[in-house]
Amino acid sequence: MNGISSSAALQTWKLVIAYDGTDYKGWQVQPGERTIQGEVQSALGRIVGEAPLPQGSGRTDAGVHALAQVASFELATRIPEPNLLRALNGTLPPSIRILEARTVRSTFHARHSSHAKTYEYRIFRGACCPPFLARYVYASRWPMDLEAMNRAAQLFVGTRDFVSFAASDPDLNARTNAEQNNAPNITVKTIFSSLWSEEPSMEGPLLLYRVRGSGFLHHMVRNLVGTMLDVGRGRIAPEAIPEIIAARSRSAAGPTAPAHGLFLHSVEYGEDE
Amino acid sequence: MNGISSSAALQTWKLVIAYDGTDYKGWQVQPGERTIQGEVQSALGRIVGEAPLPQGSGRTDAGVHALAQVASFELATRIPEPNLLRALNGTLPPSIRILEARTVRSTFHARHSSHAKTYEYRIFRGACCPPFLARYVYASRWPMDLEAMNRAAQLFVGTRDFVSFAASDPDLNARTNAEQNNAPNITVKTIFSSLWSEEPSMEGPLLLYRVRGSGFLHHMVRNLVGTMLDVGRGRIAPEAIPEIIAARSRSAAGPTAPAHGLFLHSVEYGEDE
Repeated sequence: MNGISSSAALQTWKLVIAYDGTDYKGWQVQPGERTIQGEVQSALGRIVGEAPLPQGSGRTDAGVHALAQVASFELATRIPEPNLLRALNGTLPPSIRILEARTVRSTFHARHSSHAKTYEYRIFRGACCPPFLARYVYASRWPMDLEAMNRAAQLFVGTRDFVSFAASDPDLNARTNAEQNNAPNITVKTIFSSLWSEEPSMEGPLLLYRVRGSGFLHHMVRNLVGTMLDVGRGRIAPEAIPEIIAARSRSAAGPTAPAHGLFLHSVEYGEDE
Repeated sequence: MNGISSSAALQTWKLVIAYDGTDYKGWQVQPGERTIQGEVQSALGRIVGEAPLPQGSGRTDAGVHALAQVASFELATRIPEPNLLRALNGTLPPSIRILEARTVRSTFHARHSSHAKTYEYRIFRGACCPPFLARYVYASRWPMDLEAMNRAAQLFVGTRDFVSFAASDPDLNARTNAEQNNAPNITVKTIFSSLWSEEPSMEGPLLLYRVRGSGFLHHMVRNLVGTMLDVGRGRIAPEAIPEIIAARSRSAAGPTAPAHGLFLHSVEYGEDE
């Protein structure tokens, strides 16, 4: 069944995963909670009888979606790629879909091997948000000066210390401090592109923010978006962005935009990965 | 607040309502269950202090969606139309949206006054159904001969006894028998149009069935669709449709298509209603 056989040597697998994060407590396994990582792990267990913890390219918070999250893990079981793909999609709920499943070089790691990541934030601007979009957009009727928001968005491009936009939760600080022994510049990230665009949709006008970077701090995209929404309604001048960055203080930036408008769009690796 | 005042005379209201039916036990109030009718009724109670039961144009089953369901009820409270619209959308969950709220002639009734209704059924044909569509389509990889399905669809047009496509549940039979004292031809309905079409979407090919008729029996659209899906995969010849209708037996027709692909698309009334 499923072309399964065993071998002593471990094979490294890469999965590309889309998910509707609404009904999950985020990516990371947590006792007693439904999480994406936990669902994929338990599906693997049911299919191949081994349940390695899939390592994601990064955590997504409760309610955040993914168009193409990437995860890696090792299996002793031998199973043809199309068979594992089909078995996972047959086992997982419809809110989690495996888009791709294949074996990769043994040193591949979804987080450590990634070169860049892109996030997308979706805002609905119409008078009444259709119930079929409500889980996947932030519906806001505040005035939004798109030109000012794009001036602000441009000021994030480059290599900077983004600590003003990092979550101030103690959990993150603990993690950050622990990691800082090896990587003192943990809050320094490079943003390659950062742009708002308006896209017409059958359901009404959508405003999309896409940001591509070397990596992102916890809550960073939602804090960038919340700050630019303050710019859009005239509370913060776009020209104030460099000062907010320089302040190196979470309280200098704007609020955290809601999770349900955020999508992990894609993760980039070397060629053929 | 909200421009509310009272009067002895009742005013009749018409609401147009969109909903994501996934998390509800259908339209109709049921003790201990979340239903659309129940949510609208309780929102009215919270806003105006009166909680009449909104009468829908028809019931929708658990999991069925609506792009534009219509409901009517009477209020003694006087409240400007835009204020009730805004207050309802502020009170109801994002999965239920009021698209229109206005006062109408006192004899208006969402069910009795309707001239025609249109339902839409959505099928996803791609290899892997995106999690963001999964609640709103039936994902099926069965072969579908669209030309044969449209030949079958045409054979439903006209005034016919559709009892072969009515749910065989005892509840319906009890209702049907009760109503038959006044309306012996309760299972005779007129279908004005019935058509399958393929629509490209960003997420992959969608197959849509739209049917417009004078009225529909319980499960009728889902049974029409299930029967045409059997036609599409070659199990039933399109030419067999007249025999299936003539059999006047639920067992002559195909299976019931899943609820989550079905949308109440629109309800038609006289001019200015």
